[in-house]
Amino acid sequence: MTELDFIEELKTLKKQVIIGDSFNIPEHFDNIVISGMGGSGIVGKLFSELYHTKPVICLDDYNIPDFVGKDTVFIGISYSGNTEETISCTNQALKKGAHVYAITSGGDLSGLVKEKVIIPSGLQPRSAIGYMLMPLLNTFLHIDAEKREALSRLINEIDEHHEEASKLGKEISLEKKIPAIYGFSPFRYVAYRWKTQFNENSKLMAINNYFPELNHNDTMSLRDTYLKETFFFITFGGSSGKISRRIDATEKVTSTKFFKVTPLGNDDIEKMFYLIHFGDYMSLETAISRKMDPRDVSSIEDLKRLIK
Amino acid sequence: MTELDFIEELKTLKKQVIIGDSFNIPEHFDNIVISGMGGSGIVGKLFSELYHTKPVICLDDYNIPDFVGKDTVFIGISYSGNTEETISCTNQALKKGAHVYAITSGGDLSGLVKEKVIIPSGLQPRSAIGYMLMPLLNTFLHIDAEKREALSRLINEIDEHHEEASKLGKEISLEKKIPAIYGFSPFRYVAYRWKTQFNENSKLMAINNYFPELNHNDTMSLRDTYLKETFFFITFGGSSGKISRRIDATEKVTSTKFFKVTPLGNDDIEKMFYLIHFGDYMSLETAISRKMDPRDVSSIEDLKRLIK
Repeated sequence: MTELDFIEELKTLKKQVIIGDSFNIPEHFDNIVISGMGGSGIVGKLFSELYHTKPVICLDDYNIPDFVGKDTVFIGISYSGNTEETISCTNQALKKGAHVYAITSGGDLSGLVKEKVIIPSGLQPRSAIGYMLMPLLNTFLHIDAEKREALSRLINEIDEHHEEASKLGKEISLEKKIPAIYGFSPFRYVAYRWKTQFNENSKLMAINNYFPELNHNDTMSLRDTYLKETFFFITFGGSSGKISRRIDATEKVTSTKFFKVTPLGNDDIEKMFYLIHFGDYMSLETAISRKMDPRDVSSIEDLKRLIK
Repeated sequence: MTELDFIEELKTLKKQVIIGDSFNIPEHFDNIVISGMGGSGIVGKLFSELYHTKPVICLDDYNIPDFVGKDTVFIGISYSGNTEETISCTNQALKKGAHVYAITSGGDLSGLVKEKVIIPSGLQPRSAIGYMLMPLLNTFLHIDAEKREALSRLINEIDEHHEEASKLGKEISLEKKIPAIYGFSPFRYVAYRWKTQFNENSKLMAINNYFPELNHNDTMSLRDTYLKETFFFITFGGSSGKISRRIDATEKVTSTKFFKVTPLGNDDIEKMFYLIHFGDYMSLETAISRKMDPRDVSSIEDLKRLIK
């Protein structure tokens, strides 16, 4: 397990986003419920920021809400197919008569669900984000092959030029900072993804939060907190007028400097993938600089054994 | 504006939870959409953890999703009645023909919406959490007067005995720690409430997160992060078997000690209010120890003026 292996994994993303798999969903349904944890569950959360035609409820716990039934499209997402929370929710959704679908590389989930997209195994779940997100985008946002090719080309550009991401990741480690990542719609869960990538790849605590909500609470702490020098504040550039004004005003009122990462891309989906992949390289470089193996998730595995 | 004023505010909570106001909602509806920011928006989030009969979507931004329409129960919540994000969402929901309700002390929101609960003004929005949450619980969970009286008595007990909360709040300040608060269902948003109370009352940065999701990412950082001594780790006691095992396993695998606050109360609603009020006194004591005015929200006000 060397850093090179992990980079090779990251570089598969441009191939992942080309997959054209989709689900044959019913013409009428009331709501979408997506169950998934960690690196698998993030795709439901990212999707919920792009799709607004029906309510989307993302579950990252053991139980489904009472309303799940025959008018629900339920999607269980687990890269391994053996995540206990997702298996529990999927079993409950099947019993309630929901339209049940799955995205997985195999495992128990594959055995439980008839209508599924089977994706290649052998990656870290968090590195398979393209394989897991594309079936949702293809199904509900009708992304076509041309669009997927464009997305793939954009991702390839980051694979070839991620100097800014690597520089930032290294700086965070050398200056020994805790990343505080502030997103905004539709990239709130990109901030969360970055936080989890710092956790898993770099073994580093990180904070995520989002505008405009944080202006109603965190703004007070940003001005007056102790240990402010502990944090490295990051947000995204290129936001709409209102959010952009809020970011500028927050910097001014609280005397805080935000590092701004401005995504390339022609639409929200491209920008989302740009930022996600930027975070992949950034957190990898933090790991390398800290001499941490980005693939190591041994405490998570230890914990799973302990609670069995 | 002395600390005493703020304590008097906190002590009104036991009176707040007695209010019997509720909404006359339609017999049939598909989903509930609640719009609110910060100390007002938190009540929708807390409610979403207790009610599972229909999808509940909480908005804390400027826009409503496309699905909002005549089968939606929409509730705008703004203590002042002048929160620009909530006014924007409420106007959009009215245009889409949703069943629109409001909880407010007045302002523009009161003028916009016909079916509303008008609550007393003069408090900090975050101190009016009982006034804003009870109409939701009364309407959708059919809380009766007897139940409300019991809740009021429990809150009074905390008003009279909050030594543990005050001790903890003081310790956090004296040891100069950043609170890292880890909740679990149905108290995920209690952890968020504590985070925002540390932000606004104590002017202190804080982190919130929740089990079991954090076991899929933060577990790696809890073992190996630098600056771990910066944080004060808190969770809640008295959880169900699975979550309780996860907390114990997380402590063991990551060599982390969590301070556990165990709520009193006979059901989830009582425990939720217990924990909320515990957090009120805890964050107040942190403020006092830091010589910060818990009522001061001047940066938030400055920011609102800047973005006008």
